[in-house]
Amino acid sequence: MEQRELLALLERVRSGSASPEEAAALIGSPAYEDLGYARVDHHRAQRQGAAEVIFGQGKTAEQIAGIVRSMMDRGTKNILITRLSPEKEALLRGRFPCRYSEAAQLAVANPAKRPLTGSVAVVSAGTSDLAVCEEAALTAEALGSKVERVYDAGVAGLHRLLASLEVLERARCIVAVAGMEGALPSVVGGLVSCPVIAVPTSVGYGASLGGLAALLSMLNSCASGVSVVNIDNGFGAGFLAHRINQMEGIQ
Amino acid sequence: MEQRELLALLERVRSGSASPEEAAALIGSPAYEDLGYARVDHHRAQRQGAAEVIFGQGKTAEQIAGIVRSMMDRGTKNILITRLSPEKEALLRGRFPCRYSEAAQLAVANPAKRPLTGSVAVVSAGTSDLAVCEEAALTAEALGSKVERVYDAGVAGLHRLLASLEVLERARCIVAVAGMEGALPSVVGGLVSCPVIAVPTSVGYGASLGGLAALLSMLNSCASGVSVVNIDNGFGAGFLAHRINQMEGIQ
Amino acid sequence: MEQRELLALLERVRSGSASPEEAAALIGSPAYEDLGYARVDHHRAQRQGAAEVIFGQGKTAEQIAGIVRSMMDRGTKNILITRLSPEKEALLRGRFPCRYSEAAQLAVANPAKRPLTGSVAVVSAGTSDLAVCEEAALTAEALGSKVERVYDAGVAGLHRLLASLEVLERARCIVAVAGMEGALPSVVGGLVSCPVIAVPTSVGYGASLGGLAALLSMLNSCASGVSVVNIDNGFGAGFLAHRINQMEGIQ
Amino acid sequence: MEQRELLALLERVRSGSASPEEAAALIGSPAYEDLGYARVDHHRAQRQGAAEVIFGQGKTAEQIAGIVRSMMDRGTKNILITRLSPEKEALLRGRFPCRYSEAAQLAVANPAKRPLTGSVAVVSAGTSDLAVCEEAALTAEALGSKVERVYDAGVAGLHRLLASLEVLERARCIVAVAGMEGALPSVVGGLVSCPVIAVPTSVGYGASLGGLAALLSMLNSCASGVSVVNIDNGFGAGFLAHRINQMEGIQ
Amino acid sequence: MEQRELLALLERVRSGSASPEEAAALIGSPAYEDLGYARVDHHRAQRQGAAEVIFGQGKTAEQIAGIVRSMMDRGTKNILITRLSPEKEALLRGRFPCRYSEAAQLAVANPAKRPLTGSVAVVSAGTSDLAVCEEAALTAEALGSKVERVYDAGVAGLHRLLASLEVLERARCIVAVAGMEGALPSVVGGLVSCPVIAVPTSVGYGASLGGLAALLSMLNSCASGVSVVNIDNGFGAGFLAHRINQMEGIQ
Amino acid sequence: MEQRELLALLERVRSGSASPEEAAALIGSPAYEDLGYARVDHHRAQRQGAAEVIFGQGKTAEQIAGIVRSMMDRGTKNILITRLSPEKEALLRGRFPCRYSEAAQLAVANPAKRPLTGSVAVVSAGTSDLAVCEEAALTAEALGSKVERVYDAGVAGLHRLLASLEVLERARCIVAVAGMEGALPSVVGGLVSCPVIAVPTSVGYGASLGGLAALLSMLNSCASGVSVVNIDNGFGAGFLAHRINQMEGIQ
Amino acid sequence: MEQRELLALLERVRSGSASPEEAAALIGSPAYEDLGYARVDHHRAQRQGAAEVIFGQGKTAEQIAGIVRSMMDRGTKNILITRLSPEKEALLRGRFPCRYSEAAQLAVANPAKRPLTGSVAVVSAGTSDLAVCEEAALTAEALGSKVERVYDAGVAGLHRLLASLEVLERARCIVAVAGMEGALPSVVGGLVSCPVIAVPTSVGYGASLGGLAALLSMLNSCASGVSVVNIDNGFGAGFLAHRINQMEGIQ
Amino acid sequence: MEQRELLALLERVRSGSASPEEAAALIGSPAYEDLGYARVDHHRAQRQGAAEVIFGQGKTAEQIAGIVRSMMDRGTKNILITRLSPEKEALLRGRFPCRYSEAAQLAVANPAKRPLTGSVAVVSAGTSDLAVCEEAALTAEALGSKVERVYDAGVAGLHRLLASLEVLERARCIVAVAGMEGALPSVVGGLVSCPVIAVPTSVGYGASLGGLAALLSMLNSCASGVSVVNIDNGFGAGFLAHRINQMEGIQ
Repeated sequence: MEQRELLALLERVRSGSASPEEAAALIGSPAYEDLGYARVDHHRAQRQGAAEVIFGQGKTAEQIAGIVRSMMDRGTKNILITRLSPEKEALLRGRFPCRYSEAAQLAVANPAKRPLTGSVAVVSAGTSDLAVCEEAALTAEALGSKVERVYDAGVAGLHRLLASLEVLERARCIVAVAGMEGALPSVVGGLVSCPVIAVPTSVGYGASLGGLAALLSMLNSCASGVSVVNIDNGFGAGFLAHRINQMEGIQ
Repeated sequence: MEQRELLALLERVRSGSASPEEAAALIGSPAYEDLGYARVDHHRAQRQGAAEVIFGQGKTAEQIAGIVRSMMDRGTKNILITRLSPEKEALLRGRFPCRYSEAAQLAVANPAKRPLTGSVAVVSAGTSDLAVCEEAALTAEALGSKVERVYDAGVAGLHRLLASLEVLERARCIVAVAGMEGALPSVVGGLVSCPVIAVPTSVGYGASLGGLAALLSMLNSCASGVSVVNIDNGFGAGFLAHRINQMEGIQ
Repeated sequence: MEQRELLALLERVRSGSASPEEAAALIGSPAYEDLGYARVDHHRAQRQGAAEVIFGQGKTAEQIAGIVRSMMDRGTKNILITRLSPEKEALLRGRFPCRYSEAAQLAVANPAKRPLTGSVAVVSAGTSDLAVCEEAALTAEALGSKVERVYDAGVAGLHRLLASLEVLERARCIVAVAGMEGALPSVVGGLVSCPVIAVPTSVGYGASLGGLAALLSMLNSCASGVSVVNIDNGFGAGFLAHRINQMEGIQ
Repeated sequence: MEQRELLALLERVRSGSASPEEAAALIGSPAYEDLGYARVDHHRAQRQGAAEVIFGQGKTAEQIAGIVRSMMDRGTKNILITRLSPEKEALLRGRFPCRYSEAAQLAVANPAKRPLTGSVAVVSAGTSDLAVCEEAALTAEALGSKVERVYDAGVAGLHRLLASLEVLERARCIVAVAGMEGALPSVVGGLVSCPVIAVPTSVGYGASLGGLAALLSMLNSCASGVSVVNIDNGFGAGFLAHRINQMEGIQ
Repeated sequence: MEQRELLALLERVRSGSASPEEAAALIGSPAYEDLGYARVDHHRAQRQGAAEVIFGQGKTAEQIAGIVRSMMDRGTKNILITRLSPEKEALLRGRFPCRYSEAAQLAVANPAKRPLTGSVAVVSAGTSDLAVCEEAALTAEALGSKVERVYDAGVAGLHRLLASLEVLERARCIVAVAGMEGALPSVVGGLVSCPVIAVPTSVGYGASLGGLAALLSMLNSCASGVSVVNIDNGFGAGFLAHRINQMEGIQ
Repeated sequence: MEQRELLALLERVRSGSASPEEAAALIGSPAYEDLGYARVDHHRAQRQGAAEVIFGQGKTAEQIAGIVRSMMDRGTKNILITRLSPEKEALLRGRFPCRYSEAAQLAVANPAKRPLTGSVAVVSAGTSDLAVCEEAALTAEALGSKVERVYDAGVAGLHRLLASLEVLERARCIVAVAGMEGALPSVVGGLVSCPVIAVPTSVGYGASLGGLAALLSMLNSCASGVSVVNIDNGFGAGFLAHRINQMEGIQ
Repeated sequence: MEQRELLALLERVRSGSASPEEAAALIGSPAYEDLGYARVDHHRAQRQGAAEVIFGQGKTAEQIAGIVRSMMDRGTKNILITRLSPEKEALLRGRFPCRYSEAAQLAVANPAKRPLTGSVAVVSAGTSDLAVCEEAALTAEALGSKVERVYDAGVAGLHRLLASLEVLERARCIVAVAGMEGALPSVVGGLVSCPVIAVPTSVGYGASLGGLAALLSMLNSCASGVSVVNIDNGFGAGFLAHRINQMEGIQ
Repeated sequence: MEQRELLALLERVRSGSASPEEAAALIGSPAYEDLGYARVDHHRAQRQGAAEVIFGQGKTAEQIAGIVRSMMDRGTKNILITRLSPEKEALLRGRFPCRYSEAAQLAVANPAKRPLTGSVAVVSAGTSDLAVCEEAALTAEALGSKVERVYDAGVAGLHRLLASLEVLERARCIVAVAGMEGALPSVVGGLVSCPVIAVPTSVGYGASLGGLAALLSMLNSCASGVSVVNIDNGFGAGFLAHRINQMEGIQ
């Protein structure tokens, strides 16, 4: 509650149009529903510009359904469920409207058409990074961003990347996904002037160390304008890319 | 060179208004000046929206002066020199117009007034992270962003952070700097709806591992909308924050 | 054997009320029963205020039953068996009285009602940390502590945590459980004045490194009054929390 | 501010005995003094039972003096300054009353006699861990705990440790400090029934990895009732030991 | 496109023998076929002296078949498919001519006889490194190198290695494969005067850390003339060994 | 071949009692049998005082049988096969005389009674380390050492260890096996005057890092006379313990 | 000694043209001179195609001079001394003919003109990698290779690298030196068909981990034909590059 | 105190020849002298066959002198002081009889001639490992072992090692010291039948990681009979080698 709202509320208490009990409840009320196993945060859409996202891994189908229902009861649309295995998705099917991508292990519950605007590019180094790429792309799309995909454009065959330069140049934000040596974001970052979000993936031989090699490589990128999210965190990259893409101009 | 520029140039070759030699030079010409010890990239301002930045560490004062001169000869202003020790700065003093911050070990050569627009917030957890914070803040300012500073607002005394909530809420992009456990970006990320750039610092006791603990913590942030740059990389965070801050709205 | 007991015993030897053989046996006797595969420590309850705990993992059902029987023969009650898989529990069922929690993989053999006193709070960051939380909570309860649970109250939605501030403030000891970036204990530690035991969990994406990221984060906590136990070690946290909770006042 | 205080305040607003502005200030007021370089947290003594501690490393003597003065102005006594090098201490000498230990690099500003109560034992494995031990012991003493020291009692000569068993057994909380293989807390933890706080130190040969070996060892302690603080963090251990030592009995 | 080719092309534009559109297409045309899931690089054979290699892991049988067909359509022979599991190989059988080694999990699609020339030696420390050795050996053979195998010749029984000294001495390039302590390449490197490519394998007990111990050992080799590829990367070693083996003399 | 043997051989060449071809063969002959997949080292018994040991993991039952046969053909007895899974053992049963321990996954092929001499003690911290302990004990026994076992005698219950002090004191070499914090070897090393071989095991919670914590702890042991073998390497410890145990006195 | 030489020698023994003593000396003689502090390997030039190299670090000037003299006595020319600090070089000056590069900390003792043949390219990502580059380049030149340098051509400004494509394409072997994210070798490896030797450097910010980030990146290179040497090991790369460069064609 | 001594003592109490107080003192008396800063362990020589060793690092000259005097007062000879810097040694000179090696930073206080028996070999890979080698060799000599040194015999020039085979073969225990890739112990272990103690050193380039690469290499040694001590721990190796060397034969 911001200072000006607080002052207004207190004025209403003084004027008698609100009781101290009502005011106390408003000031201190939990902005979430407690389901026992989870506290569903209903203020988040206002606070953060996007409804709460359900991290599917480690939750039972029953728990996920409960959270979705709690959100749908309040009219929430386009609820993202990440890391949702096909097995759990099968258990949930039919219980609420839902769009599911097995490649990205991502569902959008209570989906609603919305216009896709702006331009996010998702670039990948190889075919094996597809799952992470799609998690990023579908997340951004579910939130309302237009997405262009440039896959299998790793730095060992530069001409494949350069051939898509036009796509990169018109993007407002780029998600660059790479495993192995993770060099793609540095090269992309040197070619464009928009923010680049680097996503290391756990794809690779031996000393890729489950993605740590790519992660370190990206953190040490010699190109400016590059930041990094966690290994295989396609959702985080897509979410942030959308946030940047939808920015309004300075008034 | 974009496709449409290439076609235009080739038309001029056919029509005779440009010779093949001229066209070949334009298509293939190196867009940099070779100083022997460095290749100064004169196209970058156009390509990336900001002139090349000089990484001062590991270069001699003579080399730095050479690069600055090469850039000033082409009229470049507000040239950033990062990681510039006071000793080197003393050697360079008087050789070109320059503003220097010892706290941030950062210089702006050939400085020029420019209006500061938008809003970047730089938040720090403790007093000891000041150097990294200032590197971020001065970088963003040198590039043209308005910056607000909220220092010493770590999560062990939440009220200190919440007291500056208004600053955080009006920012278009936040740089959150923290050493030790690196929890600040997660808490900030949960309070706002703009992109948050997390900067781990190498400040801390024993198992902070030179900043690795904070780095890992930030990469694993449970808040959405947070991305990470390298340890102590205030410059990188400030550069990216400026890039996000200055974004235009979708047409 | 303390000095004064030893002197008393030796007096009895001199006076003839104890033979040298008896005295030697008492001084040197092994305070455990040797089952071949294990040495059951029967002095521990006296020495440490709690009976030996059986670490179930890596022991056969037969071995566990043998140790339980050996302890029950001496009248031990509320024997904790940790990391007991449902499969082993099924094999043990009916062989001795037992209460089992599948969520926590924890059993209490030969359970006996006892009054729960004081106040331990177990706070968790997310739903996925439930197993570790319950291991801590049930351990403390089995030893005689009253426990209050505050689950899914991570730092990315501070209001969910602040809504339970009252519970935190009345606790005599808090167990704070978190995976991912492990920021919860720092924030909790800044809000209360009782000891906080931090438990990192192995829940998380990529660079959580099986809980190492959270562990390092907690060790580097900027809040005072926080100490840390091993990754996923709910038992250790619950045991220590009980020990602190049950402390008597200084005489 | 607790719920019942809030209600009382709001009643006063309704009754007119407090203006909305006053109430808003109380509800939202920053409980700290902003010195520019630091936000001194004046509520902490109430909130946490101990005044803010000043982490001396990375702050200038001038900054430290400013913070001390701000606290002394409000009547704070026994202000701890940790990691205070002899050089900085010399710069501060005479500017405020102060007791300084060079061994522990720890100062107590505005010191005041207070009765030392209860019993904290600080046990060390070797002579080289002295600095960390003293930081722990002096911290606990400055906060009001009685401390007994048992130094150079490592596990390679068990009889040296067993000779001090009586001290260990009468302690209400034990701080066990060890470098190298860090085995001391496990052995101590097996001998007593009070909480044991383990402090790894960075003392050791090659693969001690700056204390990481001892840290890992302690986290994996097979003894119950042991928790761990950061490498060389004597202050943290002393602070927590005091907190546990001073606990009141359950009413 | 090299400078002289570009000039020639531009001359043809001027003379009218090529249209600007044709020239633009040639200058900017993607040198690959886009299959959606992959961009098959058809220029690589010219650019790098060997056709693209298909990394089988993480691709479906259908995708692999598609890429093979795309390459065979252009007449490519001896197409390597690495990390091809027996299950996938079964699904592909009969769809194109293919030679498969289950030991090396390596296939050669559209195989064609070619003379094997020069001499590559593949030396291994133990029997368990066989899979990696065969991946290296078969790769080099598929590309046209003659290969000699010296297996189970680890340094703990030097006479077994020395007995094959003649083979080592006539090799033009040696691939030395070892797990555990990875000492073989150092010893081999001290015996010969040709380049030695070291391949660490993930074979070993506990602290072999999945091959990291061998990798570090090899990087620190005290013998000159040794370089290293990634853990278990038999393909990479075989490819590079062939490249070195086939070198022509200086003109 | 030692210098004096070489001289003798060359004398025989000069005198004609040996042809140059025979001499060359003797000087350079491989002291092993090449089975294709393995080079069985028949000189090792002479060179090293024990026949070659077969590392079972990663070899097929067929390969193991081949090596055993090759050794038995030369009369080798008590051939150790380590890391032999029950599945492989079943495939080998009946093909040659063999004694098998499933607990240790160790077989002794062509077993022969031999007197057990000297005294090796194998001490373990917990019940879960049993497999590694037995691998060590059975190895030493197969080679001819008398072994005494002291299991479940970890440092958290010192009296259990001290009760077996007599066994430790009469041992000529001690193998100390421990997971978790790995403190046992330090304590044992402080109690005895014979060599102690420490074996870290991969048993433990979270930050035991698969045995790395125990390994580091043991390497940093503050007790003299302790050396370390690889994680879970019971065989290596048993082999070395036997070697030390069987040492003759200085003449 | 090869088999055919041995046979020849033995024939001479039989025929009496060599005594057994002489033969034994030749067969078993140590091929080095023992200086007490070092064993100078005089066979290496024959065995490995290059004289022994002196690793200057950790040796006194006196020891270095002794080794050089021992080699010069046998007529060795172009003796490389690596990691030779300017201080030690000053102590050695005038004692033997020598060429020294301070940038590379490399000396060539008893230098002799020799024709430089073939073509090695040394490519660097930034200005700060100069020392390592020069160590590589001067090593290759001292051994007889012609070297071309392409410095400051990192992947964040691809056009700077592509402008030197012609140099890369005519090289017989390329040394690619990079710190930070280490992406250069992957990009170079995708452009050429000769062997690429990657050298990670310890240049970089925070999480470059002293070059480990670049090292891991290079090991995981997605380009074929790339192998890696140790961090900052310019000498190793230059030595190997020369070895590859000087290869003769297959007869 | 062993059981039979205890019984005898108790008999004396019963018979009156010892008072209970005397007996209690004997049973419980601390076997050390408490100097405040250190507890000098006077039982160790009896218990462990060697007097306590003083770890010089981290102790003041005054403290070291105090401990030495306390030991000399009881007649102890050949007191080892390890890690004694030349500066401290200068401060101690003349205060007690002492032999000092600057190379090994090792002193023997109150030295006494004793016959050197048996045979320990200390083998090193390079000249730079000399300090660690000498620490091992001098330690073993001070304790009474005869030592033979074989220095600069690394595996990259096998003939240098093989030339000293005779020394290795007559040793009763070998200390093998190596930095960089640490391959020496494996090769030595394959050549001999006595115990080999491997000592990794912190000598090396980049990814030697301060000796960790050599340490891991040695732990993974494929040769049996090899165990490892901590990085640079020459003392530990020399002490253990002496212990093994002096073993008596089985009665």
